[in-house]
Amino acid sequence: MNNDDAITDLQDLIRQPSVSAKNQGLVACANLVVRIMRKAGIDTKLLYIDDLLKTEKEDISPPPLVYGEVRSKSNPNGKTILFYNHYDVQPVEPLELWEEDPYSGKVQGNYIFGRGSADDKGELITRIKGVEYYLNYTGDLPCNVKFIVEGEEEIGSIHLKKYLSLYKEKFECDGVIWESGFVDSSGRPIISLGQKGILSVEFISRGPSRDAHSSLAVLIGNPAWNLVRVLNSLRDDKGKILIKDWYNEARDFTNEELSLIDQEPFDEEELKKEYGIANFLNNAKGIEAKKAFAGMPTCNISGLVSGYVGKGSKTMLPAIATAKVDFRLVPDMIPEVQFERLRMHLAEHRLADNEDDKTELKFLDGEPAARTSVNNSFVNTVKEAAVEVYGDVIVNVSSAGTGPMYYFAKLLGVPSVCIGGTDLSNRSHSPNEYMRIDSLNKTIKCIALILEKFAGTNTNVFKNRSVL
Amino acid sequence: MNNDDAITDLQDLIRQPSVSAKNQGLVACANLVVRIMRKAGIDTKLLYIDDLLKTEKEDISPPPLVYGEVRSKSNPNGKTILFYNHYDVQPVEPLELWEEDPYSGKVQGNYIFGRGSADDKGELITRIKGVEYYLNYTGDLPCNVKFIVEGEEEIGSIHLKKYLSLYKEKFECDGVIWESGFVDSSGRPIISLGQKGILSVEFISRGPSRDAHSSLAVLIGNPAWNLVRVLNSLRDDKGKILIKDWYNEARDFTNEELSLIDQEPFDEEELKKEYGIANFLNNAKGIEAKKAFAGMPTCNISGLVSGYVGKGSKTMLPAIATAKVDFRLVPDMIPEVQFERLRMHLAEHRLADNEDDKTELKFLDGEPAARTSVNNSFVNTVKEAAVEVYGDVIVNVSSAGTGPMYYFAKLLGVPSVCIGGTDLSNRSHSPNEYMRIDSLNKTIKCIALILEKFAGTNTNVFKNRSVL
Repeated sequence: MNNDDAITDLQDLIRQPSVSAKNQGLVACANLVVRIMRKAGIDTKLLYIDDLLKTEKEDISPPPLVYGEVRSKSNPNGKTILFYNHYDVQPVEPLELWEEDPYSGKVQGNYIFGRGSADDKGELITRIKGVEYYLNYTGDLPCNVKFIVEGEEEIGSIHLKKYLSLYKEKFECDGVIWESGFVDSSGRPIISLGQKGILSVEFISRGPSRDAHSSLAVLIGNPAWNLVRVLNSLRDDKGKILIKDWYNEARDFTNEELSLIDQEPFDEEELKKEYGIANFLNNAKGIEAKKAFAGMPTCNISGLVSGYVGKGSKTMLPAIATAKVDFRLVPDMIPEVQFERLRMHLAEHRLADNEDDKTELKFLDGEPAARTSVNNSFVNTVKEAAVEVYGDVIVNVSSAGTGPMYYFAKLLGVPSVCIGGTDLSNRSHSPNEYMRIDSLNKTIKCIALILEKFAGTNTNVFKNRSVL
Repeated sequence: MNNDDAITDLQDLIRQPSVSAKNQGLVACANLVVRIMRKAGIDTKLLYIDDLLKTEKEDISPPPLVYGEVRSKSNPNGKTILFYNHYDVQPVEPLELWEEDPYSGKVQGNYIFGRGSADDKGELITRIKGVEYYLNYTGDLPCNVKFIVEGEEEIGSIHLKKYLSLYKEKFECDGVIWESGFVDSSGRPIISLGQKGILSVEFISRGPSRDAHSSLAVLIGNPAWNLVRVLNSLRDDKGKILIKDWYNEARDFTNEELSLIDQEPFDEEELKKEYGIANFLNNAKGIEAKKAFAGMPTCNISGLVSGYVGKGSKTMLPAIATAKVDFRLVPDMIPEVQFERLRMHLAEHRLADNEDDKTELKFLDGEPAARTSVNNSFVNTVKEAAVEVYGDVIVNVSSAGTGPMYYFAKLLGVPSVCIGGTDLSNRSHSPNEYMRIDSLNKTIKCIALILEKFAGTNTNVFKNRSVL
């Protein structure tokens, strides 16, 4: 087996910029993905939701979603696996920190460099090639496969939910292989089973109708004080959220999950060193630190602004003060429900009999958490394939980050599992992003094995082939 | 008496930009002031503190101070009055809001327009012309006069203290006529006897060594929370400052001061309307509101910034959060002492056993308050002159704002009184700044009368002259 075309195809993809934040090259990249998938033997087309959007009076059409399908000839009524990936990438700035052109796709030894080489063009190639090689060597697939490759993942998958609703029947499947997946420093793949949810809000405190001179602070209320008071009421010094009923639906870990968390390796000192901190929040250590990652809801100030922020001082009393706050959620917290609780909290923390204490609350973004059950047989399928290829595996109950996994569970009713070849200490979203070629090949092999194990067959096409 | 040259000289001054914030036209304006003062018969020169600064390794020379002097021929050993003014102005931006060129000096009916027409070129002209007309009509002055016209008032009089120290003997005098003074909507001059002090500081909270992804908020402390906690500890919801011993030296009003405050008119509804607020802080009304203006220390957030402040949300945990806070001080609070108390407060409010709770405190600016005693005879002198010219007078115990009055009291040991012709609802520091020509003329007359009354003579040069 020759893997040169995996590299060549990935280079082609890297060389086609596709920055969703700038609406740059998205359609061109979607078409390139179509060509690469068709070449692999995947029945591929572009799906649009333009009509849907026109009724909502949006100006710009969202980029198309690349949809692909291969029906197993030998097992057409068997199970279907769906690969969820994305063809858009993060912006390449700051350019001066790249050692090569970010769109070069340069290969150097075991590494291929460039924006998207890992996230997510590299991972997408592992899925396509896993299918392609299987098809090439056996003339068939052991199960049905579907591909969803979206173009807005890096800007919050803003239309994915609509795509999933609109094409729900087309996307029917039995399990989703998630777009991302990591390999730790000792080469073990980390199979992640979940993602936290998020609620992003903005607090807007208003004071006088225009900025005032600060000498007027004797009589005019300052909205920055109201904002500070409200923010300070949200959590205690240990990070516990003080909003009434906040944790009501937060699901506890099962014993199986706890046992997985306990087994998961975590280099505490490495993380502390990377961020120059002496201790974790509340001096968390060991399993407590790991539990926080997988299952602690958070309340985080991500932005704060009011008044004069230039050099020196300016004696002003600002007319407005705003804060952006994100709350990470865990299963089964629902962003809209939590938002309502926050709204109530805000109303209760308004200064009594002060008409001028006006803090508005704005909903920016909400996505529920998702977590695939440890006991789901799909997890075992992926785990077995990973062990066979990598020799070992780490099962992670949930990532600390957020993604649209919930909608796959909710709308398609299927489990999702993350598996991939990206280094844990990767440079996704940063300059000099890379993918290791050995990890790329191992993941291709792993994907092919997942198809087999998922179908329950045992061809193991790569068993006696040394290339991968 | 012809007052045309007062207008012409003021127009010349307005037409010479002198923006200290931009180091624009300062020396040219200082030289123009010298010419106008010499024309008036005032012995004038420029004073520098370059040599002093060179030893302190500063790069840019501060603008010169215009110094003027007229010694009374008939009363050379009598008392000396000092006029403190400034020739620099605020920037003219936003330009689009000006109806005329801000440097036009256009006269329209009773108004002269342009940057500095009131603050402070207009007031400076009233002092110069008061002296000039008296000299012209009598060939002498009833008392000695001195002028200090600085070029950095609008940027906090940053070198005035040094000038006062260095030229202390030259500036010796018995009373200071302050650079500013207002006339209320019914035409009554407001004689202000004091200024609040100020302490401006910056809080700098540091977290991780670089911005982190907000999913890491489970383990990494967010400096914005530390900042919010510290800020929230500074004052209660009623504006009372909670820093230990903060009010220790704050002087109570005397009975005379209280009686003046009680007499002072104050249009509460007008101020509320102007700033679009329903109530004053703590629903203050009547004498309580007026006492706050003259004598309430404040703690005001003038700037706040952390993390992402653009559109939408960004899931980040910021590395740094900063706040600018100004504290207005009253006699006899000393900025350096208050700063030390704040530093102690900060140390006490550091989270116990958390090495990562790092909030620094930076001293930005400090100026003590000053208040001339109601019983000082100089106050009565100015009051009598004002009543004679305007028919009525309001005595104000202290302005709510801050200026360098303290240094005149401390270094020269003399009382200061504010008197001037600027409308209370003026547009100083704003577009379309103006001076009323009738107020200008009344203030010129008032200045001349102050010279007479201060000397104890009774020539009353303007008594039978109708022009002013």
